[in-house]
Amino acid sequence: MSLITVGTMAFDAIETPFGKISKIVGGSATYVAYAASNFVKPVQQISIIGNDFPQEELDELRNRGVHLDGVEIVPDKKSFFWSGRYHEDMNSRDTLTTDLNVLADFDPKVPDSYQGAEFLMLGNLAPKIQLNVIQEMKKRPKLIAMDTMNFWMESAMSELKIVLKYVDMLIVNDAEARQLTGLFSLVKAAKSIMQMGPKYVIIKKGEHGALLFQDDEVFYAPALPLEDVFDPTGAGDTFAGGFIGHLAKTGDISFENMKRAIIVGSAMASFCVEKFGPIRLKEINQEDINNRIQQFKDLVSFDIELV
Amino acid sequence: MSLITVGTMAFDAIETPFGKISKIVGGSATYVAYAASNFVKPVQQISIIGNDFPQEELDELRNRGVHLDGVEIVPDKKSFFWSGRYHEDMNSRDTLTTDLNVLADFDPKVPDSYQGAEFLMLGNLAPKIQLNVIQEMKKRPKLIAMDTMNFWMESAMSELKIVLKYVDMLIVNDAEARQLTGLFSLVKAAKSIMQMGPKYVIIKKGEHGALLFQDDEVFYAPALPLEDVFDPTGAGDTFAGGFIGHLAKTGDISFENMKRAIIVGSAMASFCVEKFGPIRLKEINQEDINNRIQQFKDLVSFDIELV
Repeated sequence: MSLITVGTMAFDAIETPFGKISKIVGGSATYVAYAASNFVKPVQQISIIGNDFPQEELDELRNRGVHLDGVEIVPDKKSFFWSGRYHEDMNSRDTLTTDLNVLADFDPKVPDSYQGAEFLMLGNLAPKIQLNVIQEMKKRPKLIAMDTMNFWMESAMSELKIVLKYVDMLIVNDAEARQLTGLFSLVKAAKSIMQMGPKYVIIKKGEHGALLFQDDEVFYAPALPLEDVFDPTGAGDTFAGGFIGHLAKTGDISFENMKRAIIVGSAMASFCVEKFGPIRLKEINQEDINNRIQQFKDLVSFDIELV
Repeated sequence: MSLITVGTMAFDAIETPFGKISKIVGGSATYVAYAASNFVKPVQQISIIGNDFPQEELDELRNRGVHLDGVEIVPDKKSFFWSGRYHEDMNSRDTLTTDLNVLADFDPKVPDSYQGAEFLMLGNLAPKIQLNVIQEMKKRPKLIAMDTMNFWMESAMSELKIVLKYVDMLIVNDAEARQLTGLFSLVKAAKSIMQMGPKYVIIKKGEHGALLFQDDEVFYAPALPLEDVFDPTGAGDTFAGGFIGHLAKTGDISFENMKRAIIVGSAMASFCVEKFGPIRLKEINQEDINNRIQQFKDLVSFDIELV
């Protein structure tokens, strides 16, 4: 089944305790596409780039079954640029630069060729833009998932709360879930978010894994314990891409299948952090992915007889 | 199979965001005994108490199959007392008072009736005391597990490193594992600890679960996502008690069985935090425990076909 992903395609400069890189391709939609295209084709991309975005990156995405009809190219501007520095714990970072560039004009349109898509992944963008995309869809997708961040909670909370009424799933990290709801307990926060609109909530906890909530059900997916997290940039988007890629591949949005999708997303994210930016995501094949999923099975499997 | 547990039996005063209690029974050996006695009898307790420790608490423990021959009663002194206040995140706390009282004279002896025990749980105590207990054992137990804390790393690191050579398993939290090794990555920290002596390492991560390491194998046990953690006091000791209680019950120290034991320990700890001190541990029965273990199975189980 087809998948639309909306988000940024950008350049990042990244500094971690392990090294630094002054310019590498990034952006939420880039990571979602690299992850999801392992599972579903086409991935129908909606984004905006400047005249500086590398042609070879666009070719690489096209080769992986990513459609770019919805990617607007602004000839006289630069692509979105972000630079940041990670702290030693890799769970927190300082943003050093945010150059919106083309992103300031982003007014995404859903191309006719994308209409009818059954899965829609709304990357972290202004809530108004996310809502516009939903309203551009002639037929409501089977599942709409969205990401957001603290910036919008501080600057556009009322718009954010409106978008939440239109989506099926919110994917946020623990700090964002707490900020959105004012509740410290993640179980209570998830319940509060489900009252805002989404039927499903995923709360990402970085190295501590992720929680999936639906009604009174909860699933805890671990993260793979790694010797080193080389670069966490894009891990959350890669998780989302693997997650929704698996759902779109199978067309099954049961809770049981969402569990599988979270494991797939976690596996993809565990590759992402091994090298700078999306480098590792371009190297892996289906066998690598299967081996990694098997590692997740081994990591949490136990067999206990209740007496 | 029999189990010896060495540690404190004490009074605590506890303040959490949910309430406060000025005096309740606590101590590492108390929690270990309440947890382990659900799975193995006898639990052979080694501790020291003053003239103020309640007779009804000793009777309650005896009724649960806890032997107290190794519990020294000092007639003219008070029991160890600790008071602390938890922060909102419940993962950190301030110690307000530590009155050693009888603990200052603790020189534990292993009673003849305890000799031959196959499992030994050394609670958090001065490394020298832990070593003395090991050396008092006429026959080496099948498995010796120990807890420790940052205080001993700061004040008695060389003694601590000696004890580590004599034990099979270290059970610590994430901050302690990092402090002991100077390594931030928990995978690297666990490997480093395994080079200090222990064959097995458990790293507890509070609300994020626990990791079990042996050689290159790793198991990730989640913690149950709870609406509220009412009082975390004793949760770590309760985890250790459930863990070693299951091992002692089964006599099986394979990695597969240790996974089960971690789930049992996690289930017991999830009860402990529901009420002040050990109150909840005294209320539950085998059916409650089985239901909770089933919740852990449901929480992490997924079934994924690799294609």
